[in-house]
Amino acid sequence: MKKLSDFTFGIVGLGLMGGSLAKAIREYVLDEHNSTGKILGCDVNAVSVSLSVEQHIVDKGYSSEQTDEMLRQCDFVYICLYPHATLKFLQEHKSDFKSGAIVSDISGVKSLLFENMNSFLREDVDFIPGHPMAGSEREGYVHSSGEVFKNRNYIVLPLPSTKKENLEMFKLLITAMGFTRIIETDYHVHDHKIAFTSQLCHVIASALVNSAEDTKITAFGGGSYEDLTRIALINAPLWTELFLSNKNELLNHINNFQKSLETLKTAIEKDDSNAIEKYLEDVRVKRTAMSRIDTVEK
Amino acid sequence: MKKLSDFTFGIVGLGLMGGSLAKAIREYVLDEHNSTGKILGCDVNAVSVSLSVEQHIVDKGYSSEQTDEMLRQCDFVYICLYPHATLKFLQEHKSDFKSGAIVSDISGVKSLLFENMNSFLREDVDFIPGHPMAGSEREGYVHSSGEVFKNRNYIVLPLPSTKKENLEMFKLLITAMGFTRIIETDYHVHDHKIAFTSQLCHVIASALVNSAEDTKITAFGGGSYEDLTRIALINAPLWTELFLSNKNELLNHINNFQKSLETLKTAIEKDDSNAIEKYLEDVRVKRTAMSRIDTVEK
Repeated sequence: MKKLSDFTFGIVGLGLMGGSLAKAIREYVLDEHNSTGKILGCDVNAVSVSLSVEQHIVDKGYSSEQTDEMLRQCDFVYICLYPHATLKFLQEHKSDFKSGAIVSDISGVKSLLFENMNSFLREDVDFIPGHPMAGSEREGYVHSSGEVFKNRNYIVLPLPSTKKENLEMFKLLITAMGFTRIIETDYHVHDHKIAFTSQLCHVIASALVNSAEDTKITAFGGGSYEDLTRIALINAPLWTELFLSNKNELLNHINNFQKSLETLKTAIEKDDSNAIEKYLEDVRVKRTAMSRIDTVEK
Repeated sequence: MKKLSDFTFGIVGLGLMGGSLAKAIREYVLDEHNSTGKILGCDVNAVSVSLSVEQHIVDKGYSSEQTDEMLRQCDFVYICLYPHATLKFLQEHKSDFKSGAIVSDISGVKSLLFENMNSFLREDVDFIPGHPMAGSEREGYVHSSGEVFKNRNYIVLPLPSTKKENLEMFKLLITAMGFTRIIETDYHVHDHKIAFTSQLCHVIASALVNSAEDTKITAFGGGSYEDLTRIALINAPLWTELFLSNKNELLNHINNFQKSLETLKTAIEKDDSNAIEKYLEDVRVKRTAMSRIDTVEK
């Protein structure tokens, strides 16, 4: 069987994530081994493509029109597009993938793909959905980095048809790029959990910035507000799509959060110091238990 | 006039903040100069006191019963206690301060002190309230560090009676410890702004942990949830006191935040992608403007 370091990788979409994955593959999969592997890349943005080639990250760049030519050569294809664009790409290029190829995506919601799977799955192509849990409030290839995956989580959603050896190969790749925890789950659990850890947090951070009376408030900041609103430097079109593609799960989590907030607010209104202290003590215990689970991420 | 490096400093309360201030003074005010100054310290916790002396941070430690003996020697007294304890300390030890001394505090709410000022102010002692905008989710002297103040904000609340030369001396001290921005304001503005940047953030982080369905959720985390809930490793008694001592300001900010959240939630419920995108775009612009103001803090 072909070794990972001899694979031809294809990166579809050389933005922040696609660029970062390409750089991590270049450094930790190809350069570190005596490899014959290569990276091909395509993007609608010609500047990103030529920059990635100039930097010797991508061996050969392709325009959007040449995507089929690129796909036909790839053993592993990473689709690094927004959720709806990912679905559309998989449908439109269904017949372009090389037979035997592994294909994965990075989409932050998965029900959209799983509920439309019949429109793009092929028996001889192994589509293994995934979600690298890393990112940045910055955008675009110029801000990409191969180092952002160290000690992070990767969620993998194998299908019943996923070949064991392909899943193992994918996990080798994930580990080589620096991720230290791989969670296997299904798309219901994924979308439910991610609506909480990711989308709800972006909703809260955005609402917190929205409610600020002015932009000078950070002169009075001690780090808390900065921590809570870093992710509010938000990519509006992407997150609008993520919120709406996972609407029901997200709304449930927002409702639960609103109830938790209301409980604490009511205790403050009533000057109920015992209730507040109990609430905060429980929060501390709960958050501490979470931290322990997180130690591998530090 | 006496130089800062020849001052006798008194630290009341050798917890996380008192310990950190003592360490910063030791390193950046005394050790860096050919100084005759010294640091005295007292705490109800005898272990903290003896540890601070063993580490050569505090020159001489005092028990709570010996506080008056300590205070009589100090040119500058830092009261590093919880808000109500700060008020009580100032009242009980009113007559123990050395004539001409500068006294400051670190309390996170100020109305409590300002509204009771007649009970402890002395004409020959310069009380200059202040709020170092730095901290940690950890507690106690063992977690203190003299390095946590670098590039942070310090809010100073001079009184009409504050002597110009004492205020300048205080600012020299603040700058020497590493703070890069000093904001002068009154207690109404302080408590209003801090209720937003600090207390509201702790309320939100706590509610977000409270609303988590289990403690394993961070396996699905990509950094956002971790960022938003770091401060939920909360000191329950301290924050209960801070929330209730600044109740009205805090409740106003919670209400505004709830409205902002509701607006975004409604847009999601209605599938109104234009409204969501506009909201997020405005948030991005607003948060970016805040970041620019913050560049000195980086």
